[in-house]
Amino acid sequence: MIAVKALVFDVFGTVVDWREAVARDLRAFFDRHRAGAIDPRAAADAWRERYQPAMEQCRSGQRPFTRLDVLHRENLEAVLREHGLDPAAISVGELDELNRAWHRLDPWPDVVEGLQRLKAHYIVAPLSNGNVSLLLNMAKRAGLPWDVILGAEVANAYKPQPEAYLRTADILGLRPAQLCLVAAHNSDLAAARTCGLRTAFVLRPREHGPGQVSDLQPTQPWDIVAADFLDLAAQLGC
Amino acid sequence: MIAVKALVFDVFGTVVDWREAVARDLRAFFDRHRAGAIDPRAAADAWRERYQPAMEQCRSGQRPFTRLDVLHRENLEAVLREHGLDPAAISVGELDELNRAWHRLDPWPDVVEGLQRLKAHYIVAPLSNGNVSLLLNMAKRAGLPWDVILGAEVANAYKPQPEAYLRTADILGLRPAQLCLVAAHNSDLAAARTCGLRTAFVLRPREHGPGQVSDLQPTQPWDIVAADFLDLAAQLGC
Repeated sequence: MIAVKALVFDVFGTVVDWREAVARDLRAFFDRHRAGAIDPRAAADAWRERYQPAMEQCRSGQRPFTRLDVLHRENLEAVLREHGLDPAAISVGELDELNRAWHRLDPWPDVVEGLQRLKAHYIVAPLSNGNVSLLLNMAKRAGLPWDVILGAEVANAYKPQPEAYLRTADILGLRPAQLCLVAAHNSDLAAARTCGLRTAFVLRPREHGPGQVSDLQPTQPWDIVAADFLDLAAQLGC
Repeated sequence: MIAVKALVFDVFGTVVDWREAVARDLRAFFDRHRAGAIDPRAAADAWRERYQPAMEQCRSGQRPFTRLDVLHRENLEAVLREHGLDPAAISVGELDELNRAWHRLDPWPDVVEGLQRLKAHYIVAPLSNGNVSLLLNMAKRAGLPWDVILGAEVANAYKPQPEAYLRTADILGLRPAQLCLVAAHNSDLAAARTCGLRTAFVLRPREHGPGQVSDLQPTQPWDIVAADFLDLAAQLGC
């Protein structure tokens, strides 16, 4: 880890608790539209389930790279229909505002202090599939002290495509081994390691709620395994 | 200005005093190479004079978009030859290090406090022809509190090409009129205004040293004219 100059972070699940925040905004929306019987957490999960298939269309070349705000917006309409609501009966402005729930996600409690400590010794940046304005608005609202905002939109490729990791290193003017990906997902770390990045696994056992079954332990010997960002900072001497 | 959400900043000359910092590093380099008779400020000016023609090759399509670090490195070799030094006789590592003088520029004295005040009310971001790692390393060293790093490399176009301004607005998820360009150069502001951005002129009468003749006053009625970043913050109620 001595060569590492930049810590690059997965965001959804690793930095922020997307499920609770999206459910909060969905609950208010359902209440306004007399659909209070819909479970907002289940709807948040349904919205998130459409995330990988939508990006896969871009990865496979079926459609050109399209920023996540647009994919989220398409998926929102599908989720509403799936739950018996007609998106055509709702104003575009209100749907756009609801779609920006993904810009209003709250960080896990250890994140802001952890990032501040890490930032004193390393470049800290998101390497997320979220688009720049999503990550920027999230950071302004939550006080995430990023040095620079990187990720899919800047690299023009969605993780786990190698280009997402390799172009990020190139933009930073660094070799892959000078970057360490911090993520709560073994699959993301595996792709980063294949590209030559260092890897830090942070446990987020409630990302998917109390019944989570995935990513409860490391599936490879990652360079670092940490309980949270404060533990990560401590292990890195920050 | 009420609609403005993001202040985007020209950097070379507006945020940082490139001439004195580049001359400082050139002076040390010339001394090491028994070339102390060369005026380092004149050499800095000569290096900078090759900046626009190099970018023009990219703007015109003669060569693909190439990040500024690469253009600076090519121009450095030309400037050394022009001053009687043979770049082939100097190690690649030392030339690369000297080239990164552009990553080590110092801000004008009002900048850090001004940006901190403006950041509390607006998104603050560079919209520079500098590449991302140049701007990032500069910001880490100088304490520039950018929310996000934008500019030519992210937009894939060099100012004053319209794409540099318009793609920056698009990436931010904003309309052009929700951005205000802050710059010490009338030509940059004129191009931004043509694209629909708001404009703030900040006077930097010593960018080119005591004999400066350009950009000593506004050439159009810009939305704001400010003496420095503290004056800009005061005029914007920050």
